[in-house]
Amino acid sequence: MKQIIRVVVDAMGGDNAPSQPIKAAAEAVKEREDIEILLVGQEEVIQRELKQYQIPEGRIRVIPASEVIEMGEPPVNAIRRKKDSSMVVGMKLVKQGEADAFISSGSTGAVLVGGQLVVGRIRGIERPPLAPLIPTEHGVALLIDCGANVDARASHLVQFAKMGSIYMENVMGVKNPRVGLVNIGAEEEKGNALVKETFPLLKKCEDINFIGNVEARDIPAGVCDVVVCEAFVGNVILKLYEGVGKTMMTMIKNGMMTNTRSKVGALLVKPALKETLKAFDATQYGGAPLLGLNGLVVKTHGSAKSGEIKNAIAQCVQFTQQQINAKIKENLIIEKKQEEP
Amino acid sequence: MKQIIRVVVDAMGGDNAPSQPIKAAAEAVKEREDIEILLVGQEEVIQRELKQYQIPEGRIRVIPASEVIEMGEPPVNAIRRKKDSSMVVGMKLVKQGEADAFISSGSTGAVLVGGQLVVGRIRGIERPPLAPLIPTEHGVALLIDCGANVDARASHLVQFAKMGSIYMENVMGVKNPRVGLVNIGAEEEKGNALVKETFPLLKKCEDINFIGNVEARDIPAGVCDVVVCEAFVGNVILKLYEGVGKTMMTMIKNGMMTNTRSKVGALLVKPALKETLKAFDATQYGGAPLLGLNGLVVKTHGSAKSGEIKNAIAQCVQFTQQQINAKIKENLIIEKKQEEP
Repeated sequence: MKQIIRVVVDAMGGDNAPSQPIKAAAEAVKEREDIEILLVGQEEVIQRELKQYQIPEGRIRVIPASEVIEMGEPPVNAIRRKKDSSMVVGMKLVKQGEADAFISSGSTGAVLVGGQLVVGRIRGIERPPLAPLIPTEHGVALLIDCGANVDARASHLVQFAKMGSIYMENVMGVKNPRVGLVNIGAEEEKGNALVKETFPLLKKCEDINFIGNVEARDIPAGVCDVVVCEAFVGNVILKLYEGVGKTMMTMIKNGMMTNTRSKVGALLVKPALKETLKAFDATQYGGAPLLGLNGLVVKTHGSAKSGEIKNAIAQCVQFTQQQINAKIKENLIIEKKQEEP
Repeated sequence: MKQIIRVVVDAMGGDNAPSQPIKAAAEAVKEREDIEILLVGQEEVIQRELKQYQIPEGRIRVIPASEVIEMGEPPVNAIRRKKDSSMVVGMKLVKQGEADAFISSGSTGAVLVGGQLVVGRIRGIERPPLAPLIPTEHGVALLIDCGANVDARASHLVQFAKMGSIYMENVMGVKNPRVGLVNIGAEEEKGNALVKETFPLLKKCEDINFIGNVEARDIPAGVCDVVVCEAFVGNVILKLYEGVGKTMMTMIKNGMMTNTRSKVGALLVKPALKETLKAFDATQYGGAPLLGLNGLVVKTHGSAKSGEIKNAIAQCVQFTQQQINAKIKENLIIEKKQEEP
């Protein structure tokens, strides 16, 4: 018998809630047989929205949660006080083993805090990293960590490298993923105190394919598959990717509108340009997993449409079927053994 | 009588040395009356190269230096041992007041070390930052610091903000430049230990126009004129700018070559695209000044052509005429007075 993966979708999170998360759920259960979706949120709202879809019997369950965590709320307070919010109720299902994964387009801060406080870390994991996929010239790379926990230690970065490798190999299907450490030069002696301490530790790891320091310049060209850095730097990389891309496109579009000749040209290149932009659009790859938890939590963009959420659902299935958490735990046991004399 | 600005150009530094630095010198003295160029390097090589230009009498002096610092050399060693290198000899001229500024396309590390060890810091400046101009949607912004001194302290960042403001206002002509602190969120309480400590200090500064935290996403859109960060983050921003831009252009070009329709379109939009790319090309704005030294040191790209070096020469003239260093010193005195009870 095939395993049914139970994915909780936060019906109340994100700019396009509840319509897009619910649309994603409705489409996902039609497209694939191996899932059950648990829609969590205000019951009446969800039921009203669901009416427009033909839902196959028993494939979507509605889990009532009366409260909603808003984007601007201080995350720790929100998670602690709103016990009946879609996020807390949804994450509890994962914690209690009643679901395999939780997806939300809501407040990143609340997702990060909830992941740690409600779902909880795998024993031995010091910090759960948020690891979005970023587009490169030849595909995607996993940027780990982009979370809210700044001022990381070297031991955290080593765990990020290992979890990132397991994820890219098993969820994304990249054989022997290349792990790079973000630095300001390729030489081993370059960098700040953190990366100087991390480099030799990564070099010693036998279970990852560490290729050394990588410069930010080479990340978009696809120099490695797992981009290891602490969250402050990761956040800068993630957001600058978005910012430079957006500004360049605006400038190119405006540039092409300056005269008739290029306006005509613009019409002709538009379809090709659109394809390029799509390849450089992170949302098509699903959400960012929060790794190292007792279950899977995936953060989709605040502006996520049903397509991105459906991709995130597929990610959750792959993650669960490939038993990523078992692999992470196994890795931690090996690590512990190596430390013993 | 008009002041003559004396600019030393390192004839031996960079991928295109000696031809491009010498071409820049020859063209610059033809184009403007207010400069004298001191070309430093191997005399025979420089004289041979100079023969192809008509140099107005007494406008270019050749300063012999027998050694060359190579790109791969450990910077501290290179500066200490190669006393007769073009870099050390050229910087000494600035130190001794025989020249106003020094420009090199050679090793960034050596320029940074030389600036500190040979030219020396202005008394009271804790760290000289390297501050390149980066393109934005509406012009340029000063990214300060991108140097090699990582693990900065909050007091350094405050000095960067002040020096950057003086530079943008007086050299680039930006009135009341907006100063932003790079952070992972716009809220005051966000960030790592360093930015949390720096924020209130910048808020207290009455002589700068501090607009608060800025996210990396908003830098390319031109949200501020002076982008304050420590060197590791600055380096990531600078290089990712370059990397994302390059990758996007490659993808767009390849994308346009996929079918006949878009190939024709590509021909038509090419001139407009070229203009856009030019606006997004940092080299047209000259080099990156190393601020806070007893004189001006400017680092141009390793691949700099004569155009960039000529722009850097113009920058040196503006810097000297506007008496930036006097303004920095004045600012330090005010700062000291404020600290006294």
